[in-house]
Amino acid sequence: MGKPVLYSYWRSSCSWRVRIALQLKKIDFEYRAVHLLNNGGEQFKEDYVALNPMKELPTLCIDGHTLTQSIAIIEYLEDAHAESGARLLPDDAGAKAEVRALTHMISSDIQPVQNLRVLKRFMGEFDTPEVKDAKKMEWGKWAIETGFDGLEKALERTAGVFCFGDSVTMADLALIPQVYNAERFGVNMASYPTISRVAKALEVLPEFKAAHPSAMPDAQ
Amino acid sequence: MGKPVLYSYWRSSCSWRVRIALQLKKIDFEYRAVHLLNNGGEQFKEDYVALNPMKELPTLCIDGHTLTQSIAIIEYLEDAHAESGARLLPDDAGAKAEVRALTHMISSDIQPVQNLRVLKRFMGEFDTPEVKDAKKMEWGKWAIETGFDGLEKALERTAGVFCFGDSVTMADLALIPQVYNAERFGVNMASYPTISRVAKALEVLPEFKAAHPSAMPDAQ
Repeated sequence: MGKPVLYSYWRSSCSWRVRIALQLKKIDFEYRAVHLLNNGGEQFKEDYVALNPMKELPTLCIDGHTLTQSIAIIEYLEDAHAESGARLLPDDAGAKAEVRALTHMISSDIQPVQNLRVLKRFMGEFDTPEVKDAKKMEWGKWAIETGFDGLEKALERTAGVFCFGDSVTMADLALIPQVYNAERFGVNMASYPTISRVAKALEVLPEFKAAHPSAMPDAQ
Repeated sequence: MGKPVLYSYWRSSCSWRVRIALQLKKIDFEYRAVHLLNNGGEQFKEDYVALNPMKELPTLCIDGHTLTQSIAIIEYLEDAHAESGARLLPDDAGAKAEVRALTHMISSDIQPVQNLRVLKRFMGEFDTPEVKDAKKMEWGKWAIETGFDGLEKALERTAGVFCFGDSVTMADLALIPQVYNAERFGVNMASYPTISRVAKALEVLPEFKAAHPSAMPDAQ
């Protein structure tokens, strides 16, 4: 069926999660850049919307499927490529539920509230570019700090070297892009010692380095 | 280990998803109401935050675990109670990925952007109660319509009687509370014929009736 194709944007958090998963699963793929800002947003172009009706990144074409939604894609890689590379979820149902909960705290509670679409809508309430920009930073910081306050407490219970014990799991794939966004929005990471410690342990891993925005062909 | 305990609020979308899952899985449970508005929000009380560090509903105590995040909880019920009641995910990995993607379109892209916490933050930008209320309605309608535009297109491909073919899946558990919210925010459902048709097929099922907000002990 040919090489898997990932539609991605270098700085898209959700694309980044899937890039890490593909690295950890040792799945080779072709990278196709979709620019979220140029030409009014390439995710709105008809041929891309045919693949991804939500007009979002990422989309992964693999094994004859066209898959959307980053966490659903990662779950697919875990289901269909269980024996390839690392496992991203523990076997035990209770442990699996904890990893999924940590993941969704980020992928449902934090990231969607500070994504580009929502920021643009929020900025639409204000007049001047200066105020728009200040309000955007305020909103993003608020969204991430509200979420990190809870996530930090959750990780105090579950983290070892990584988010859940000492093996990399799906939760770590969600954490790293969120910490990058936190830094962009000026979140004081000193308030989140566990999140910071886990992020430091993750960012030196070769699979995480290979998936970093700065390593993408469309990085600016 | 005693009867499972669900911490819920009658009108909470995320609690509602889990209530439907428990009904479909035929798992008897004790209902504990957490009022999201009274006393400044009971989800912020210390003893509840000890269970749920994100200060959100639902929390399910089951099989000795304290589980949070509605979709992670539903996945747990599917993993650990596979033989009880209905299956909520198909067996095939590709089909499972499609059901998860439909689910996350709602649970990650739509609901989090129009939930109480975000609406309150947005309303904080405006002065009078009248403007706050009008802006809240505008925002919620925008968030749901943007998401439903994509979801409708996705469902055109996947839906049979229900969201994915002719069996109830996890995606249907997310859909029903979202349609209820759409109606609260004045979304014109005539623009979404597939979503409307599936919702109509679901709402008459006994398990969905039993989980409806109006059937909850804390309904107002």
